[in-house]
Amino acid sequence: MAQTTPNHTQTVSGWAAQDTSGNISPYTFKRRENGDTDVTIDILYCGVCHTDLHQAKNDWGITMYPIVPGHEITGIIRKVGKKVEGFKVGDRAGIGCLAASCLDCEFCQTSQENYCDKLQFTYNGVFWDGSITYGGYSDMIVSDYRYVVHVPESLPMDAAAPLLCAGITVFTPLKDHNLIESPRKKIGVVGLGGLGHVAVKFGKAFGHHVTVISTSPSKEKEARERLGADDFIVSTNPTHMQAGRRTLDFILNTVSAEHSLGPILELLKVNGTMVIVGAPGNSLELPAFPLIFGKRTVKGGIIGGMKETQEMMDLCGKHNITCDIEVVKPVNINKAFQRLAANDVKYRFVIDIAGSGSSL
Amino acid sequence: MAQTTPNHTQTVSGWAAQDTSGNISPYTFKRRENGDTDVTIDILYCGVCHTDLHQAKNDWGITMYPIVPGHEITGIIRKVGKKVEGFKVGDRAGIGCLAASCLDCEFCQTSQENYCDKLQFTYNGVFWDGSITYGGYSDMIVSDYRYVVHVPESLPMDAAAPLLCAGITVFTPLKDHNLIESPRKKIGVVGLGGLGHVAVKFGKAFGHHVTVISTSPSKEKEARERLGADDFIVSTNPTHMQAGRRTLDFILNTVSAEHSLGPILELLKVNGTMVIVGAPGNSLELPAFPLIFGKRTVKGGIIGGMKETQEMMDLCGKHNITCDIEVVKPVNINKAFQRLAANDVKYRFVIDIAGSGSSL
Repeated sequence: MAQTTPNHTQTVSGWAAQDTSGNISPYTFKRRENGDTDVTIDILYCGVCHTDLHQAKNDWGITMYPIVPGHEITGIIRKVGKKVEGFKVGDRAGIGCLAASCLDCEFCQTSQENYCDKLQFTYNGVFWDGSITYGGYSDMIVSDYRYVVHVPESLPMDAAAPLLCAGITVFTPLKDHNLIESPRKKIGVVGLGGLGHVAVKFGKAFGHHVTVISTSPSKEKEARERLGADDFIVSTNPTHMQAGRRTLDFILNTVSAEHSLGPILELLKVNGTMVIVGAPGNSLELPAFPLIFGKRTVKGGIIGGMKETQEMMDLCGKHNITCDIEVVKPVNINKAFQRLAANDVKYRFVIDIAGSGSSL
Repeated sequence: MAQTTPNHTQTVSGWAAQDTSGNISPYTFKRRENGDTDVTIDILYCGVCHTDLHQAKNDWGITMYPIVPGHEITGIIRKVGKKVEGFKVGDRAGIGCLAASCLDCEFCQTSQENYCDKLQFTYNGVFWDGSITYGGYSDMIVSDYRYVVHVPESLPMDAAAPLLCAGITVFTPLKDHNLIESPRKKIGVVGLGGLGHVAVKFGKAFGHHVTVISTSPSKEKEARERLGADDFIVSTNPTHMQAGRRTLDFILNTVSAEHSLGPILELLKVNGTMVIVGAPGNSLELPAFPLIFGKRTVKGGIIGGMKETQEMMDLCGKHNITCDIEVVKPVNINKAFQRLAANDVKYRFVIDIAGSGSSL
């Protein structure tokens, strides 16, 4: 059942899941006319985030079907409303997770829109006009310009797309903990997937000693040789874990499977901080003793504000940081979902929406 | 089996648990001679901490029997070693959880001895000379002066005793988060027991708005009228919990039973912090969503360093803060344990070791 919202007159070709099978199929729907504060973007690429898979299958119980996933969007601006500032037709643009916020609260006023209590997401959200939002698995999108960023000329549009979610998700905790311009800290990255591999690149670009913590010994060679990690700890190896005790200043935990935080906390120095950016559906196990005896901190965080997102994109342009991707045609989204569910991707699928690249 | 350690020549009357029944009975043992850096203290009072009960019963699997519990000790100094600084015979003194640390690491050097990797506790620890430490359920104790504090003249020795553990445990997180001299924050205290009731007193003394969060509606009157709490949330009442959403800057969680942190985290504002000072034997449940969507922090902490402990004692003297206690005779320790296990105490049992007060 497509929604009917006044002023939603533009026909869009997209791809949607219709039920909890999560199966993605072509779906034609409507978007709003380009308003005064909107830009219309012809989508080139859209990354496939693990969240897309969870939402397509209604893993979190909040999905409104049909759902058009996708919040790692790059494209070219085709139309600009008369009150839009900072964007013009032809600009290379990116859209991440945010579609709307109140624009008025303390968080919106300080570009922490991601913590606005009225936050709405790029898909499966409810926009100001009451319409359900549809994401980037589609050939064009209309977005309020306050949730759009510029993509630096030096970055390829396909490999830049996942920066809009995976990138900002790991960037903001580093910025919050003063790790962008204070090098030579000892940083751990738990999980070497879509988020983790970008975290390693950021850590190295910002001058830190980076340790990858993983259950998969097979990832060590790649982590060290291609991504530049300085150390590798197999989290199921008690000798590794004991040797790593109290050695790290900061840990980014990107794992979205349920797990106990206890053994990983022991790797932190006293007063160390672990930031959780994965989103397991069930609770994490938090044993009190490693928390208490090390005065350690477990902190959460979800993406970043718009100002930070632009800052990250610009830094990625400067340091030439992109995601490692596999580009897929829209017809292969379901195969990509299957492989993603099996953790069989290095490190992010990106959908070639416009058919402009060479893709599988 | 009593330990035999050279130079442990002083006979002490105490009370010990001999096995996992946790039953406490009279026990005579030896303490070391007073060394150059030691003070010998005639014990007047010793508080009964929940940890004593856990350790007496070997709940954490680390108990060395016989165990003489007690780490909330007040008494009078009887002897002073020739290298002791700052203490003299006749001084009113207090001993908390710490018996030894390396005195050399970054934590010892900055009076964060409580995070020294070689930390040893007042009981069930191993002292520098290899002897197992025995706590305050005894008539005298020998302690290195670097783990002893002064008890202000204005404080009664019985009601001051629990400050040495319960007090410092809730004081240090307030100090760490700049809540001693920055009034008018909104603070939550989860659990109104031995730790919680002192936390409420500190919160009010330091000028904050204090909300007690409890499963027991019956505690509201007492929390508000006697302890001065400003608000009371019944954590099992969904209406209360919804109304309290995103209202608190800081939460001290003193509950030592297993529980989910999720609902309580929702009471924190964005960027708010919950400090865990209870020590459940099993893991806490930490749902990722309230952590992530509110950029919230869960932090641990165990007691405080010696400098902080003295600072707290002095502030308690200034603000006239003590624990609410029930004084018991040594012969009634087992009854006190039983009532403590049933949460039937307001709010701390203190053992009248020297028989100097009126006790049950």
